[in-house]
Amino acid sequence: MNGNKSITRRDEDFAKWYTDVVMAAKLARYSNVKGCILYEPNGTAIWEKIQQVLDKKFKETGHKNVQMPMLIPESLLRKEGDLVKGFAPEVAWVTEGGDKKLDERLCIRPTSETLFSDYYHEVVKSYKDLPLKYNQWCNVMRWEKEARPFLRGREFFWQEGHTVHATKEEAEAETKGMLDVYKEFFEDYLAIPVLTGRKTEKEKFAGAEYTLTVEALMYNGVSLQSGTTHYFGQKFSKAYDIRFVNSNNEFEYAYQTSWGVSNRMIGAIIMVHGDDNGLILPPRIAPIQVAIIKATTDNETDALARKIQKELDNNDISSYIDDSDKSFGFKMAEAEVNGIPVRIELGKRDIDNGVITISRRDTLEKNTIGINDNVVDYVFRLMDSIQANLYDRALKRRDSMTYHVNTLDEIKKIMDTQPGFIYSPWCGSTECELKMKEIKGLKSRCIVEDNEDGVCPVCGKKSKHTVVWGIQY
Amino acid sequence: MNGNKSITRRDEDFAKWYTDVVMAAKLARYSNVKGCILYEPNGTAIWEKIQQVLDKKFKETGHKNVQMPMLIPESLLRKEGDLVKGFAPEVAWVTEGGDKKLDERLCIRPTSETLFSDYYHEVVKSYKDLPLKYNQWCNVMRWEKEARPFLRGREFFWQEGHTVHATKEEAEAETKGMLDVYKEFFEDYLAIPVLTGRKTEKEKFAGAEYTLTVEALMYNGVSLQSGTTHYFGQKFSKAYDIRFVNSNNEFEYAYQTSWGVSNRMIGAIIMVHGDDNGLILPPRIAPIQVAIIKATTDNETDALARKIQKELDNNDISSYIDDSDKSFGFKMAEAEVNGIPVRIELGKRDIDNGVITISRRDTLEKNTIGINDNVVDYVFRLMDSIQANLYDRALKRRDSMTYHVNTLDEIKKIMDTQPGFIYSPWCGSTECELKMKEIKGLKSRCIVEDNEDGVCPVCGKKSKHTVVWGIQY
Repeated sequence: MNGNKSITRRDEDFAKWYTDVVMAAKLARYSNVKGCILYEPNGTAIWEKIQQVLDKKFKETGHKNVQMPMLIPESLLRKEGDLVKGFAPEVAWVTEGGDKKLDERLCIRPTSETLFSDYYHEVVKSYKDLPLKYNQWCNVMRWEKEARPFLRGREFFWQEGHTVHATKEEAEAETKGMLDVYKEFFEDYLAIPVLTGRKTEKEKFAGAEYTLTVEALMYNGVSLQSGTTHYFGQKFSKAYDIRFVNSNNEFEYAYQTSWGVSNRMIGAIIMVHGDDNGLILPPRIAPIQVAIIKATTDNETDALARKIQKELDNNDISSYIDDSDKSFGFKMAEAEVNGIPVRIELGKRDIDNGVITISRRDTLEKNTIGINDNVVDYVFRLMDSIQANLYDRALKRRDSMTYHVNTLDEIKKIMDTQPGFIYSPWCGSTECELKMKEIKGLKSRCIVEDNEDGVCPVCGKKSKHTVVWGIQY
Repeated sequence: MNGNKSITRRDEDFAKWYTDVVMAAKLARYSNVKGCILYEPNGTAIWEKIQQVLDKKFKETGHKNVQMPMLIPESLLRKEGDLVKGFAPEVAWVTEGGDKKLDERLCIRPTSETLFSDYYHEVVKSYKDLPLKYNQWCNVMRWEKEARPFLRGREFFWQEGHTVHATKEEAEAETKGMLDVYKEFFEDYLAIPVLTGRKTEKEKFAGAEYTLTVEALMYNGVSLQSGTTHYFGQKFSKAYDIRFVNSNNEFEYAYQTSWGVSNRMIGAIIMVHGDDNGLILPPRIAPIQVAIIKATTDNETDALARKIQKELDNNDISSYIDDSDKSFGFKMAEAEVNGIPVRIELGKRDIDNGVITISRRDTLEKNTIGINDNVVDYVFRLMDSIQANLYDRALKRRDSMTYHVNTLDEIKKIMDTQPGFIYSPWCGSTECELKMKEIKGLKSRCIVEDNEDGVCPVCGKKSKHTVVWGIQY
């Protein structure tokens, strides 16, 4: 494994390696619109595949899609105080339309609690209308100073689920249930093991009673908040007057949740699985699972390529035949840098010998099989093996960077060597949380369990929880 | 057919009927964001189905999806003069971001020729890179004064294809080819017969060398421009400097096209097929094709409903069982107003007699079939019949409102009785086109053929084309 020449070595400069992989795999590029990323076909196709899988899961769990406006009038945004405090400093404002100055500023949605709540205010009347479990796939905007493809930028793509329920219990079950959907998706499709838990008061979403989170650990030991679900209780329903007549014929404020994941997930795929040769896509989320590369363009090779593609196609395995006039080596390298899980190489000499070569992207191992062997079965087994291996590899890496500690000294030592997920007892105070930040920016990722048997490493008082600390992207 | 009580009769007040259908079928509603529409689950599901079918067609014809930023800096927009003239008066401007006044205004994209051209400027180097055939599904914004669901509004949803080619011929073939894709989609899926042709100079897209269009005639005789494809020649490539090295090793400006259809198509479905009972969805575009309605909730009925749904499901026919505690009549009416093509009614007495009732939404006819008959076969045949009948009905209606005339008197008479598509010779001058507008706002829909044998009804000079006139939505 010599690596791709256009890509900085991962262990040399992780941040530069990341950008190089994004560019080399043609996933995205910086646009000439400051702070905004332009997503190229390879990056867009991964997002579409993610949408397709998740959307099916959302619908299977009883959710329906809607489309809210992208603009929010300032007065509507200001109704829920905590939300405004959280977002007002980082929104983009439309102040002119159709060559006229507007009477009221409109912000481009940073998130849509406001619009959903305003809608629910109008349509929720009776407990018989509930629950309403809606979702939207959309672009949102937050006025970030910097942009990094998939990780940070003014505009990004996500889904935001917003639900309204007649009881606290049902809303809390939704908050937990959607976290499980996310966790399963990360583990089963993206082959990324994740940690789940509750955000601290300091780190929770503005306006939520509590926030649950899915946290993944990147190859370099940095944590990526990868998806969150929020229990709002009656905070928004009181601010936006969402009342329903309950089964006792009394007015009651509704209970709400929201939950979202974004195209940041693609950043996680890159940073968990990628290597010095470029992107590695888990087969279950790869828009194209097999690359068929021909060494020559003679009729026999062409026919074989088409025959193989047809068989794969009949079994819903996506593939492409590279018919371009680039060199054999170039095409092979391109499939590799783009992270295509399986590559079928049709060499002239191989074919003469009655075999074809199949290589797997995760380990770069190659094998030959007979031309008349069942290629579909082989590819299915190989993809299962790649999917499992990527998960295991990521889990081992994560375990090697997971620490259980009790003292500040241990924490400091870890931060001086190899950061990761640091489990420790915690007293629960924001003061101690802020002091942890002084150690190279450590932040709480989530509370994973109650723990009254330990001692807070910062203040020395009795602990309340076990919390996981990490460096945040 | 008595009609739905919440819906104004179509022949009484067409505009009000339209709004009533949109509301009664829960497709969309006016939001509290001025000029912006909020799309509810039923409306969003139709758009998703449209996207799914069209996206497949785009990919089969070699297109890939990308995502451009939603904001365009003013300086970038101003590079192509004609485009700016067309759009500058109707864009929304972001002037503040993150609580600071911006150095340069950014508009929310009204369309993305600018961003695609800026991108192509950077990536197009050689004829070997060409063609690039990209598309994006997105929201765009135009600062309209009024909003009508699916027809007009500040924000709307569409797809915009943008392609770049090494030759004029290939770009023109793309412009024509995508028009054919749209025409086929309208006729085969939406069951809407369409007229295609070229826009006049006055009506073409700002910045295009020429525009081709798909025009549909609504039930009331008003025309709806339903999709357009544009040949840009080298206009944008010269403004944005998109040059490539051609096969003679010389620099050449590239040839471009763009093409788009929007969720306005849903407005066309409503206005072509709908009736006094509400929406009618053609089976091939209906998100849910069959409603299964139970008169009672006994075990036998439940089991039968589930058995039927399973059989439909196994044959990729989408359906729902209405398990709500609403009345039998209410559920029947709801399926009807929502336009579900086929309704299976499970009545207690029917079941005791060994039959079930199946009704079709287009004609409201009912039939019974035996409980043990092949329901899947029956539904397949019924859906084919509905799809064909909707098309035929729309075609007959259109033909009855299509006129071939030679004089202004004939045109005026038509406009006093029943407007529609009016074919006439035309000299080709914008002056005569503007004079036609004085007849109740008549506008050219498109040029359908060359015609040097006629006389322009306005100026009396020899004609150049046959043009179709109509009232525009």
